[in-house]
Amino acid sequence: MDLAEISERFQADQYATKITGIEIVEVREYYAKTKLVVEPKHMNAFGIMHGGTLFTLADFTFAVAINADKEDSTVAIECHISFLKPVTEGVLYAESQLISKSRSLIALDVTITNERGDIIAKFHGRGFTRKAQQ
Amino acid sequence: MDLAEISERFQADQYATKITGIEIVEVREYYAKTKLVVEPKHMNAFGIMHGGTLFTLADFTFAVAINADKEDSTVAIECHISFLKPVTEGVLYAESQLISKSRSLIALDVTITNERGDIIAKFHGRGFTRKAQQ
Amino acid sequence: MDLAEISERFQADQYATKITGIEIVEVREYYAKTKLVVEPKHMNAFGIMHGGTLFTLADFTFAVAINADKEDSTVAIECHISFLKPVTEGVLYAESQLISKSRSLIALDVTITNERGDIIAKFHGRGFTRKAQQ
Amino acid sequence: MDLAEISERFQADQYATKITGIEIVEVREYYAKTKLVVEPKHMNAFGIMHGGTLFTLADFTFAVAINADKEDSTVAIECHISFLKPVTEGVLYAESQLISKSRSLIALDVTITNERGDIIAKFHGRGFTRKAQQ
Repeated sequence: MDLAEISERFQADQYATKITGIEIVEVREYYAKTKLVVEPKHMNAFGIMHGGTLFTLADFTFAVAINADKEDSTVAIECHISFLKPVTEGVLYAESQLISKSRSLIALDVTITNERGDIIAKFHGRGFTRKAQQ
Repeated sequence: MDLAEISERFQADQYATKITGIEIVEVREYYAKTKLVVEPKHMNAFGIMHGGTLFTLADFTFAVAINADKEDSTVAIECHISFLKPVTEGVLYAESQLISKSRSLIALDVTITNERGDIIAKFHGRGFTRKAQQ
Repeated sequence: MDLAEISERFQADQYATKITGIEIVEVREYYAKTKLVVEPKHMNAFGIMHGGTLFTLADFTFAVAINADKEDSTVAIECHISFLKPVTEGVLYAESQLISKSRSLIALDVTITNERGDIIAKFHGRGFTRKAQQ
Repeated sequence: MDLAEISERFQADQYATKITGIEIVEVREYYAKTKLVVEPKHMNAFGIMHGGTLFTLADFTFAVAINADKEDSTVAIECHISFLKPVTEGVLYAESQLISKSRSLIALDVTITNERGDIIAKFHGRGFTRKAQQ
C-alpha cells in the first residue's frame, strides 16, 4: 500500500486522526512518520501539552508502522513513555524504529521531536499479532 | 478543595475533559476516581477503544490525584501502561492508588475497569515535583 | 505441585537461587511469595542494594508464579520496575498479584517490601506462553 | 576519570562486577559500554539467561554512564526492559545512549546485543540526581 491508501484506511482512527488531528507523513513496512500541529485543544490544566496527546501520537505511529500492508491485526499490549520536555506550541513529529519482530510479537520505539529536533518524548511499544485462523 | 472546585480547575484540561469527555467522580489528597462513557470518537482504526484514549484516562486520573489541594505542580515523567482487554462500548472507571511519596517524587498506579469490574488496563506513573521557590 | 517440589524445580535457577540467594516462601497457581536476606554481595557501588538484585527478586517471583504447576513454558517479555526506597540491610519479601490472563499472555504485578512493610519496589511483568505443539 | 579509574571505582559494585562478572569496556561522560561472558551461573530454571542477569547488565551500564566523572550521585528510579531474544551462550555487550538530561533528571537507553549484533534486550532508565547540599 502507498501513503494515500494507508492514510485513507487510518481515517477510520477516530481518536488519533479526527479528534487529535494527527497526520501520516511517511509510511513503509514496519516504519511510520507522523505529524501533529500543536493546538489549544491538546493542552492539560497547566497549559502544556497533555501526556495523553503525546502518548496518542506515539501509539498511533506505532499502530500505523506495524499494520501497514498486512493481513493480520497487531495490537499494542505493553507501552512505556518517557516525558522529556514540555510542549506549548509548534509542530511535533513522531518517527518509529523497528527493534525486533517474531511470529507473534513485535517491538518498536517511537521518538517524538519538535521542529528544532529536541526530543520531547520517547516511547517503547510491544505488539501481539493475532493470526486470522487462530 | 472539594470535588466541585477540583472539577472546575480541571475544566482547563482541554484534552482530557473537553475533547475526550472524562469526568471526575471522586477526589481526595493523592486519590482520584474518574469516569468515561465510551463513544465512537474514542475508537481506533480497528473499531476498538484507542490506546491513546485509555492512556489519557489513566494519565488524567494520575494528574488529578497528585495535584488535588496542592501549591506545587507535579508532572508525570515516566509512565507504563499494560493493555489487557479490548473495549467497544459501555462505561469505564479509572481509580488511582498511591504507592510512594517523597519530597520530589511520587508514584501511583491507576487501574481502569469496566462496569463488570473486568480490568481493562493497568497504568503506573512516576511524577516529579518542581518546588515553587526552586 | 507443592512448595517442596516447586522449590526443587527452581533450584535449577542458578542466578536467582544459587547466586542471589532467593528463597521461595509460598506458591500456588499464579501466585508466589519469595524472600531475600540482604547481604553485602547484593550491593552496588554506592553501598545500597543493586537495582539488578531487586529486579532479579521480582522477576524470579513472577517466573515462579506463572510457571507453577504447568506444562507450557511462559517467559517475561516486557517488564517495568519502579525503585521507591533504598535498601541497606534486613530481609525483603516479594509477592505477586495476578492482573490478567488469556490464552497466550499473562500479566502480574510484584511488590517488594521490607520487614516493616515499606514498599521498596513495584514491578509489572507481561509474559508470553509458547504452547508445546506450536 | 579514565577507564582504569572508573573500573576501579565500580569494583565496589558487588552484584554487577563481583557476582555477575560484568566488565566495563569503554566509558566517557554519559556513555558506557560493558561486556558479559555468558556462564552457567547466569541461567534461569529453563536453561536460558535470566531476565535478572540481563537487567543487571543494562542497569549497571546505565549507572556507570550517568555517574562517570561526577560529584552528585544519581540513582535509577524507573526502568523498563524488553526481552527480545533468548541467550544460552557467547558474549553480550551493553551500550548506553543519552536521551535527555536536565538539572535533576536524566534518561538513557541501553541496548544489549550478542556477538552477531542481534538485539537481545532493550532497556530504558530514568535517573534522579540528589544534589550534595540538598
